[in-house]
Amino acid sequence: MASIRVTRSREPMQQKVERPPRVLVCPSGFKESLQPHVVADCIEKGILVACAHARVIKAPLVDGGEGTTEALVAATGGQLYPVEVLGPTRQPVQSCFGIIGGQAKKTAVIEMAAAAGLSLVPRDQRNPLNTTTFGVGQLIVAALNAGAEHILVGCGDSGTCDGGVGMAQALGARFLNGDGTRILDASGALPLAGLASIDLIGLDPRLATVPIDVACNWHNVLCGSRGVARVFGPQKGATLEDVLKLESAMEKVAAVCSTYLGRDISTEPGSGASGGLGAGLLLLGATLHSRFDIIFRFLAIEALIADCDIVFTAEGSLDDQTPRGKIPAEVARMARRYQVPVIALAGTIGRGADTNYKTGIRAFMSICSRPVSLEKAILEAEHLLAKAAESSMRMVMVGQGFDLEKILRAFGGI
Amino acid sequence: MASIRVTRSREPMQQKVERPPRVLVCPSGFKESLQPHVVADCIEKGILVACAHARVIKAPLVDGGEGTTEALVAATGGQLYPVEVLGPTRQPVQSCFGIIGGQAKKTAVIEMAAAAGLSLVPRDQRNPLNTTTFGVGQLIVAALNAGAEHILVGCGDSGTCDGGVGMAQALGARFLNGDGTRILDASGALPLAGLASIDLIGLDPRLATVPIDVACNWHNVLCGSRGVARVFGPQKGATLEDVLKLESAMEKVAAVCSTYLGRDISTEPGSGASGGLGAGLLLLGATLHSRFDIIFRFLAIEALIADCDIVFTAEGSLDDQTPRGKIPAEVARMARRYQVPVIALAGTIGRGADTNYKTGIRAFMSICSRPVSLEKAILEAEHLLAKAAESSMRMVMVGQGFDLEKILRAFGGI
Repeated sequence: MASIRVTRSREPMQQKVERPPRVLVCPSGFKESLQPHVVADCIEKGILVACAHARVIKAPLVDGGEGTTEALVAATGGQLYPVEVLGPTRQPVQSCFGIIGGQAKKTAVIEMAAAAGLSLVPRDQRNPLNTTTFGVGQLIVAALNAGAEHILVGCGDSGTCDGGVGMAQALGARFLNGDGTRILDASGALPLAGLASIDLIGLDPRLATVPIDVACNWHNVLCGSRGVARVFGPQKGATLEDVLKLESAMEKVAAVCSTYLGRDISTEPGSGASGGLGAGLLLLGATLHSRFDIIFRFLAIEALIADCDIVFTAEGSLDDQTPRGKIPAEVARMARRYQVPVIALAGTIGRGADTNYKTGIRAFMSICSRPVSLEKAILEAEHLLAKAAESSMRMVMVGQGFDLEKILRAFGGI
Repeated sequence: MASIRVTRSREPMQQKVERPPRVLVCPSGFKESLQPHVVADCIEKGILVACAHARVIKAPLVDGGEGTTEALVAATGGQLYPVEVLGPTRQPVQSCFGIIGGQAKKTAVIEMAAAAGLSLVPRDQRNPLNTTTFGVGQLIVAALNAGAEHILVGCGDSGTCDGGVGMAQALGARFLNGDGTRILDASGALPLAGLASIDLIGLDPRLATVPIDVACNWHNVLCGSRGVARVFGPQKGATLEDVLKLESAMEKVAAVCSTYLGRDISTEPGSGASGGLGAGLLLLGATLHSRFDIIFRFLAIEALIADCDIVFTAEGSLDDQTPRGKIPAEVARMARRYQVPVIALAGTIGRGADTNYKTGIRAFMSICSRPVSLEKAILEAEHLLAKAAESSMRMVMVGQGFDLEKILRAFGGI
């Protein structure tokens, strides 16, 4: 039996335990404030102030939406490829896809928001009846042209609700009205009112051999009472009347896709992701995944968690929405399988934050160190975050020493 | 060798360690917001949510100023005695002294602020040339009348700067001008310009046998560049001209007291406490103590610290002033002797807060859980404090499990 080498002191710095603590830092970004990798850097900084000998591994996380391509490329040592595509309002936009490093097959990552995101739609043009995912299809073509053997598409932060029709059109699909006339490419959801059938004869043949995996929110479905038009239409600029039109368009898309695929996809998990892009991708033979399942896989998060002593995660706000598929909760659920404790830092600890304890988050704290305005907190966010990480790590270290002492007592006062 | 009984889980609730953790809660009050005992109750509540089996001992702390009598009486199971005295502006005020429980000799506690505190001086009458400590002397008389065999006087939060002359007058001392005329009782600092000698013939004879211990800020001295008139005069309402008059009055007090006592007390530690009340008390034969030395003794803080696993303390603000004799720092210094870790909670983590790590505070956090205004934070202070205590305790418990796991690994993976 090995012996425990500890001094009598409760000061953790003096406790000679063999191995430095392994701390995994896998935060989300802070919306409209800090990028995920900046959040990770700040947390690392604070941890190292508290515990200079800690071994910190950073794995900043994304949810498939804005920043996904960049994050996956950075984390894997991959490469970004700039591409000009048609944006959501049919203006050219500078976009890009990435080739992920360290994969056996050449794997491209495409972020739908980089070609059809809400932030690409000027505020005065925010009408999801008119916006298109055509550029997403162009990114897929560009990835295929670059020799991609496997494609990952990230959904989230979309400014569209065209059922992925624009995307499929860019890849050669033809969408037809009842009278056989063709619906114009990149024309948005409005003309889908007449959609009656699909012609996939002209589809890019490479799609038959290049698998597409999609990271999407599993809760987003195409039709029904929780359908994408009703749930997300208004925040993309749809009026109540528009929502009814969008709903009807999504039902048409569901009908033709279901007919083609031989199964009803109208409420299939993820079919409504990114304004129904999920449905369009299903049509092309893609596989939809609950977003963190696939993103965690590409970032090897499970192995990182299994191999660490403690996880720090973070998000702008921690509240009763967090357990519904936000990064801290998903990290905690994974960590719980390996009985690794998770500490969450947040700008705001909001209403119902305690529900997060059920996901496996063991403790959380706000980065706010005094009464402060939101504007000021955002300005100082990097500093506050580092200090909060430091304080948290210090408290953990208090617990370390505390418990050691208890064990020593259990041993009869060594 | 005893065996460690732990499960394989890192969840602390499942760790079967023999004894519940003993947590000592000894906070300050939050100025103008929460009384010390309320702060202690909130912290206890949060700790018990995080760790239901913890054994929490509460010892809310005071610094000799407002709340001292009540706190010592409550902590020791003593009794309060109401007394009407002359207030600082010579209006009658309802005051009180306490008899401390559990002492071999009948011991009274008197808080100078209860008879001559700044909060008893209406804002439009804040002029320390006019205010008097006469009521403090009346409280001492009342305590003697009640049979006190030992008196503890707490200094702090004073609204006076009369060198304790008023207090001594109430006990029978006569202060004389150069021409032998008597300075009027309770007339404040202004007439001390003529002070030339003292006559203690009429002094209450019981003072000869009843020892007086004084809890005061050791850094406050009567005269010189750090003298009480300069340092505290302005915040009690003195103009620059007033300060010069106060300074001259304090020099007169220093001279006559030094002559009587046979030693120079002008810069003796504590002589300037509570507008020079320290000097007046020295004249009566009292012993001045650095405030926490004596308060900690009456509350048996040292024994409580020695017997606990972790200490929680708190103050409204934690900053670079805290190490200079504020409660969290004094608690930490005492705890360090016993190698007990201290966690500090505060409304505001202010400038230079990191200097507190040197005192033995091992980690701190703000009670602010989101960007919030000061007014709102004060309104919600009880709730926020309980939640911060809960979060801190949870982090400590993460450290417990974390370390246990490491020890198990050191044992070769039991």
